[in-house]
Amino acid sequence: MIQKIDHLGIAVRNLDEATKYYEEALGLKCEGREEVASQKVKTAFFTVGEVHLELLEPTADDSPIAKFLAKNGEGIHHIAFGTDDITGQLSQAADQGIRLIHEVPFEGAADKLVAFLHPKSTHGVLTEFCMPK
Amino acid sequence: MIQKIDHLGIAVRNLDEATKYYEEALGLKCEGREEVASQKVKTAFFTVGEVHLELLEPTADDSPIAKFLAKNGEGIHHIAFGTDDITGQLSQAADQGIRLIHEVPFEGAADKLVAFLHPKSTHGVLTEFCMPK
Repeated sequence: MIQKIDHLGIAVRNLDEATKYYEEALGLKCEGREEVASQKVKTAFFTVGEVHLELLEPTADDSPIAKFLAKNGEGIHHIAFGTDDITGQLSQAADQGIRLIHEVPFEGAADKLVAFLHPKSTHGVLTEFCMPK
Repeated sequence: MIQKIDHLGIAVRNLDEATKYYEEALGLKCEGREEVASQKVKTAFFTVGEVHLELLEPTADDSPIAKFLAKNGEGIHHIAFGTDDITGQLSQAADQGIRLIHEVPFEGAADKLVAFLHPKSTHGVLTEFCMPK
């Protein structure tokens, strides 16, 4: 069952400039930074209530985020739903004909299991399920 | 101060089909529907933890959502931050050089005061502040 929105991933061209906007114009506090080599991104995290915002800047031209920026420009890249049963969520989506990017969850950042649904099946929203390991 | 993400607005071409996806593939419950004549949209609401999802289908070709769909296709249209001081948030953003779509909050749906920041100033994310009246 989906319990909350765990995080929103937001693609940005320059992490320093975007962090400055979220801190100084919105008044949010950056809680950390991390480089995720496997995804070729560096990220900055913010907490807003129960939701995390993750700013994502590509670290290589073949990063998925670099491709997103080239096609769409900056903006919200994905929405991640926190669930207590990631396998069940994937089965339910597949049963409804939704195209899965990952049929089996894999280990993402922050000790979570994650898997994505394809935006062509989800009305344009790249959708992630995630669950603590 | 920003307290939470109040809602995410998601532009869709067909409210019935998108509602079916959120209900049947994700297992969320549609909590209501509403037509907002001033914005030329009809909406369906879902609650996920402390955040609402608002699916938005245009009801006219000159609806802001129709223009968004023509340019971007379906996807997340805006993020709305709930705040306890909407005037202060707007002042803070303006002081940082952020372009405001509305310099003065106006009355939105559900008895809230709302105002938007321009996505050209916010790293591509159409950003709303909202506050209960």
